[in-house]
Amino acid sequence: MNKSDFPPDSQATLTIDLKAIVENYQNCNHLAGGVECAAMVKADAYGMGIEQVAPTLFHKAGCKNFFVANLAEAIKLRSFTPDAIIYVLNGIFPNHIDYFIRHNIRPVLNDLDQIRLWAEIPSTARPPCAIHFDTGINRLGLSPKETKLFINDTSMRERLDISLIMSHLACSDDRTNPMNAQQLADFTTITRHFPGTPASLANSGGILLGPDYHFDMVRPGLLLFGGNPSNGVMPENIRAAFQITGKILQIRTLEPGQSVGYGATWTASKTCHIATINIGYADGYLQMFNNCGFAYADKTKLAIVGRVSMDMIAVDVTDIKIKTGGDVELLGAHITLEMASEVSTLSQYEILTGVRERYQRIYN
Amino acid sequence: MNKSDFPPDSQATLTIDLKAIVENYQNCNHLAGGVECAAMVKADAYGMGIEQVAPTLFHKAGCKNFFVANLAEAIKLRSFTPDAIIYVLNGIFPNHIDYFIRHNIRPVLNDLDQIRLWAEIPSTARPPCAIHFDTGINRLGLSPKETKLFINDTSMRERLDISLIMSHLACSDDRTNPMNAQQLADFTTITRHFPGTPASLANSGGILLGPDYHFDMVRPGLLLFGGNPSNGVMPENIRAAFQITGKILQIRTLEPGQSVGYGATWTASKTCHIATINIGYADGYLQMFNNCGFAYADKTKLAIVGRVSMDMIAVDVTDIKIKTGGDVELLGAHITLEMASEVSTLSQYEILTGVRERYQRIYN
Repeated sequence: MNKSDFPPDSQATLTIDLKAIVENYQNCNHLAGGVECAAMVKADAYGMGIEQVAPTLFHKAGCKNFFVANLAEAIKLRSFTPDAIIYVLNGIFPNHIDYFIRHNIRPVLNDLDQIRLWAEIPSTARPPCAIHFDTGINRLGLSPKETKLFINDTSMRERLDISLIMSHLACSDDRTNPMNAQQLADFTTITRHFPGTPASLANSGGILLGPDYHFDMVRPGLLLFGGNPSNGVMPENIRAAFQITGKILQIRTLEPGQSVGYGATWTASKTCHIATINIGYADGYLQMFNNCGFAYADKTKLAIVGRVSMDMIAVDVTDIKIKTGGDVELLGAHITLEMASEVSTLSQYEILTGVRERYQRIYN
Repeated sequence: MNKSDFPPDSQATLTIDLKAIVENYQNCNHLAGGVECAAMVKADAYGMGIEQVAPTLFHKAGCKNFFVANLAEAIKLRSFTPDAIIYVLNGIFPNHIDYFIRHNIRPVLNDLDQIRLWAEIPSTARPPCAIHFDTGINRLGLSPKETKLFINDTSMRERLDISLIMSHLACSDDRTNPMNAQQLADFTTITRHFPGTPASLANSGGILLGPDYHFDMVRPGLLLFGGNPSNGVMPENIRAAFQITGKILQIRTLEPGQSVGYGATWTASKTCHIATINIGYADGYLQMFNNCGFAYADKTKLAIVGRVSMDMIAVDVTDIKIKTGGDVELLGAHITLEMASEVSTLSQYEILTGVRERYQRIYN
């Protein structure tokens, strides 16, 4: 359908600031002391739209290396960024090899079976791959036992073009967790067996753990979009790259004793004005925000009242001047990911990747 | 991109059983004693895909009336079901009228301003509309005061073609809540002022409250897809219309003391086999399932261990026979919406509408 078929204000709006994403990338690069800075763009670029985000990072920020979770995401990404280096974190299944080769996509190989599969490709030009060594998160990657076997299997290693060795931190959000230092030590030991091969350990949280964690490449995700991946202070200059704005469908005056929403979980204690906004849990604004979320309009922080419905929330607008059709910020510069995460107990990552298709998307 | 560009097993799978949706519709019709049965298909048909679900209900189940939340959803739906009756629950803004007329879409008018706007349309054939009377949920609809004014405004009423009057129940999930009877009484009183105009009160939960609540039209949503909208027993013959299946990316053997996932929140107490599955919170499988969710494979209920990651979960497969590449059910016939809701504290509605774009979708 044509975009002009839809009136501009019939949906809530998700505004994505591509310039902020570029600047956040540059700040990540700076934080990582100038080592290669890749971009995590899995899960549709954390919900922000891989089709817009990845080409912007490639052309305007100079980002050359991209990571996605699965092969379908990679094939899609390839169509937007023909010249980028693309890694697939989920590894390979036997019937996927042709797709990797055809689309010039690099697998992150996670176990010896996958490594054997890739080494057996009959090709004069060995296609590049990454190897993932698990150092404690126990999700994907070669186990310590497999790592030893692989390190000593010279003939296998000679049949591979390893463009990257990597591992993944389990607790980088917590700067004081001793697991960080343990994983760093284990990964450092592994890198000594691969002199000259680029190495990568740090996600967004890892970048903030300092230079020891940066190696040859960092892999920020959340930081690119303006979330804080750590229990420490948010790095200077990183800013929110998104704003969610709802529209007031109706404002009603409630008298003391009247309740709002499903289950009637909120009751007016005085005469008040309640605005119904066109955002609900089907847009990713979950019931964890029942009676505890915040919105922002007219320079004022406003309370979400009652239960979040599938398509609507109610906001107390008693103390501000606003009319039907007015805009209310649900997430962005004033209601930050950190604030939303704190009141809802959802992680910043969940809130960000939780945004759905129903928003009208505006890219600036 | 062409579908053949993507290997079939590179993503997790969401299988939607259109036949089950048709049969659930027929059962809703039966439960409602044969009164007109509309379908709630807002939020992309509760995440199941409006493009597939709505035409199926129209052509195969005989459903003629559809409700969506906003105008953008309605315009999209119109392109799939040119002959359906489509209502927009969110009402109208002044600049939307042309779109409603052009696409033959009926607004649900929620206040006197909206009613005036619609009544002022210069047209010989008055376009039909619905009127929403609020009876206590305090979200959308005419307040009791506005309701009285409207009932007595004969000249305004004469300028409208009211095809439906409706209200919405706040507590229909709880059969014993006294608010149900109060809303029923208030709505019944209103209907007496509109003899001959079809009336509708019941959503899925309302259908189960019995014949008094059915009036001339019921509006099921959750029941169509196989969720239980009530704290009572699930109606016979309603069945899950969806299945979410993940694929095992890797299986690792953990020794006692080894931990799994971010934050290392789960630790093996004995030697065990942990499978990493390609579904995470970016797919809508939220961290509310950390260390408490269930999966199903090899006729066995399996435990989710550790934190849910963005793209992965870990499942304890120690006690079953399964290999890398094997399929694991996360939601469907064995891990029901009710079970998933109970362990996660997410509502069934949130889990259902939470499914994201990253799944490979299969319609049967």
